[in-house]
Amino acid sequence: MRVTVWNEFVHERRDEEVRKIYPQGIHAVLGDFLQKEGFSVRFALLEQPEHGLTEEVLAQTDVLIWWGHIAHQEVEDEVAERVTRRILSGMGFIALHASQKAKVFKRLMGTSCGLKWREAGEKERLWVVEPGHPICQGLPEHFELEQEEMYGEPFEIPPPESVVFLSWFPGGEVFRSGCTFTRGAGKIFYFQPGHETYPTYYHPVVQKVICNAVRWAAPSGGPAPTYGNHNPLERI
Amino acid sequence: MRVTVWNEFVHERRDEEVRKIYPQGIHAVLGDFLQKEGFSVRFALLEQPEHGLTEEVLAQTDVLIWWGHIAHQEVEDEVAERVTRRILSGMGFIALHASQKAKVFKRLMGTSCGLKWREAGEKERLWVVEPGHPICQGLPEHFELEQEEMYGEPFEIPPPESVVFLSWFPGGEVFRSGCTFTRGAGKIFYFQPGHETYPTYYHPVVQKVICNAVRWAAPSGGPAPTYGNHNPLERI
Amino acid sequence: MRVTVWNEFVHERRDEEVRKIYPQGIHAVLGDFLQKEGFSVRFALLEQPEHGLTEEVLAQTDVLIWWGHIAHQEVEDEVAERVTRRILSGMGFIALHASQKAKVFKRLMGTSCGLKWREAGEKERLWVVEPGHPICQGLPEHFELEQEEMYGEPFEIPPPESVVFLSWFPGGEVFRSGCTFTRGAGKIFYFQPGHETYPTYYHPVVQKVICNAVRWAAPSGGPAPTYGNHNPLERI
Amino acid sequence: MRVTVWNEFVHERRDEEVRKIYPQGIHAVLGDFLQKEGFSVRFALLEQPEHGLTEEVLAQTDVLIWWGHIAHQEVEDEVAERVTRRILSGMGFIALHASQKAKVFKRLMGTSCGLKWREAGEKERLWVVEPGHPICQGLPEHFELEQEEMYGEPFEIPPPESVVFLSWFPGGEVFRSGCTFTRGAGKIFYFQPGHETYPTYYHPVVQKVICNAVRWAAPSGGPAPTYGNHNPLERI
Repeated sequence: MRVTVWNEFVHERRDEEVRKIYPQGIHAVLGDFLQKEGFSVRFALLEQPEHGLTEEVLAQTDVLIWWGHIAHQEVEDEVAERVTRRILSGMGFIALHASQKAKVFKRLMGTSCGLKWREAGEKERLWVVEPGHPICQGLPEHFELEQEEMYGEPFEIPPPESVVFLSWFPGGEVFRSGCTFTRGAGKIFYFQPGHETYPTYYHPVVQKVICNAVRWAAPSGGPAPTYGNHNPLERI
Repeated sequence: MRVTVWNEFVHERRDEEVRKIYPQGIHAVLGDFLQKEGFSVRFALLEQPEHGLTEEVLAQTDVLIWWGHIAHQEVEDEVAERVTRRILSGMGFIALHASQKAKVFKRLMGTSCGLKWREAGEKERLWVVEPGHPICQGLPEHFELEQEEMYGEPFEIPPPESVVFLSWFPGGEVFRSGCTFTRGAGKIFYFQPGHETYPTYYHPVVQKVICNAVRWAAPSGGPAPTYGNHNPLERI
Repeated sequence: MRVTVWNEFVHERRDEEVRKIYPQGIHAVLGDFLQKEGFSVRFALLEQPEHGLTEEVLAQTDVLIWWGHIAHQEVEDEVAERVTRRILSGMGFIALHASQKAKVFKRLMGTSCGLKWREAGEKERLWVVEPGHPICQGLPEHFELEQEEMYGEPFEIPPPESVVFLSWFPGGEVFRSGCTFTRGAGKIFYFQPGHETYPTYYHPVVQKVICNAVRWAAPSGGPAPTYGNHNPLERI
Repeated sequence: MRVTVWNEFVHERRDEEVRKIYPQGIHAVLGDFLQKEGFSVRFALLEQPEHGLTEEVLAQTDVLIWWGHIAHQEVEDEVAERVTRRILSGMGFIALHASQKAKVFKRLMGTSCGLKWREAGEKERLWVVEPGHPICQGLPEHFELEQEEMYGEPFEIPPPESVVFLSWFPGGEVFRSGCTFTRGAGKIFYFQPGHETYPTYYHPVVQKVICNAVRWAAPSGGPAPTYGNHNPLERI
């Protein structure tokens, strides 16, 4: 299983508070636990040519993980389009936290992906609501993050195929924090935790969720559809 | 639009606290605002012959509203089966509060309909998560009930076709408190609020939700399917 | 109920065969039966300024019907974007036939909307598979069009919320020919019949489907969501 | 992966035509290719005590495959209930062909599972409509069975979570021939081919589908939900 971790890698270099938590970048921490799980990991960054997402890299990627936040607009349309096409043809895609506003994710959803948010270091409690989903392997019935950014409903996404997690926040908000979608042959997972000022990706249950999601989102190996003008009518 | 309101009508006669809130029974309060909305309303009670749900009554019912709690087991299997058949053939069905454990609802879901609960007079906040759903006509983005019984996830139901409301409770729980399902030609809405010791059904937004749900659940007037041995093969 | 019928209106003026069937344009035939049903109808055409779809027109439209085929690329991006935003905020949208490749529809779906096709004047048989759906009001269990363009699976769309119709074609193909989606507060119906060289929109059952779909797709009147930075944390 | 194959095993002993195709029973052919795939297989038959489905056997079963047709009524209610509970707690379930009318499947669906049928030795063509689904691994875009029993829509099931296959029959019928459902923690796959008078289960693509479905339906290892009275309110 070949995983590419994409990171805009801006906060970690600009902001002391974030650098203390993720000195090598969020992608490095993600890559670390993915490698320990046995996945083959490569990184791609906004600053690289074509943001590190050439046709070649994508062709060798089974699942792409995406972390973006303040630099969505700096992603070139052509690259976003290329990634989208590759997902439709079967590559898995895991969008983390603020990546619900990334060009690729919005393009796949067709909606604004708007939501409510609040940065107040609140506790988040995530409830498993589809215990039979492969993403829930080995999870407890619920788990907590001591501090997270609040993301609250309404969340303008298409009705998910599975709502795996529902989150609770102390201020009175709820959120569909783990959602799956199929687009073309590609499987997509949106997972809400991961604000850059909290050590979320060191949390063992969060790591387990992401590893499970990688296995779930892997290409199915199903047929490549052909479209267009079909054989002349021949009664079968 | 012909609505039948079914009530087990046990708490209101047995328990002083409940009688103060619903002196004529929960069904009377439900019937009252439904009639004001212009629906034709009739009542059916557990204590009546065939629980008031004869073939004749069901044939004249467009939408059946159900409130049951401690007397689910007293509903005769034959009547539960008759109601289920009528729903499959197009009658709408609205299951309120603890009716998630009613024979008819469990029979339609195929699951245990288990959930977590707590009677502590807590505030409940309901968020609209599908603003385009007809059940949300005229609702605010969220609304609150000062006191309700907590119902919490996991809720063992089939994945709903629409999750219209998500609820927040102060103790850290969340709940899919408004869910729609289709079974056969019948439309089904589960709506969680309505514990007998709180005046929930006097709340204007709760009333609006139930009226909207009645309109949404009305029979579609679609074709009555025919099953079984089909015409001999004749190439068309 | 205010319906706007949009037509690219190209085939009918360019192609003698099509003009014989739709001398005033496909939109005129659509508008005719919609008006007889009691809807308030206005037209918008590709050739008009802003393709007839100004903010003003859209603000006064409850449901937009779209017929496009060979001129999808001539629709300005800005207008497509405007229509999309209006759908997300609650306007209904009915995409007919080849409009599965229209900019607005593809933008909402997030997929290629690819499919197989064949122009061979074949019979199409449409089966109702969700008889309880409001779009099926008054329909027979199945109905036939003597001649249609074949559209066949695979059809690259997101999993529909309801598959209302499934179609059969004599050459061995099947197709999800009536599909519903929700995007934001907008309800969307894709309906496959309507190739320009056949008199499909004169067929009484086809007309019934479209009228039913207009009623179903009407704005719900639900709350307008607000997004962004939420109230400071205040334990409720 | 431990698979139990259940067969009513009636036709194969009673009917010469069927015995020629499945001399050791349908279960033997199913078990044969499943073992070659590396699964651990055991059999259970209607004629055995408790139909071979004791608590012990079910506890040691990851995925249960079911083939029944004319003896559905002979399955004891208690055993059907036990199997259902085990599915809700995570065991996978694959219902083949006429097993859509088996007690367990109907109990899980909550509908009549009615459909149209015709025994005329017709060709069936199955189209893959969700190429990204794990059940489609290694499949062609469509495949054909030279002779099958026609099963046609409408098929009274709850809206499936995925419609993996759609079938075409020469008499003008279509059918959702591969459907997935989640009930509790259990994953369920209905697969339509397999009439006893045709050698369907020797077909290599059919075998591939069933092997894929076993892998997909395996228990997720997610949390076992707890229901009932929840901790006293404690603001978190």
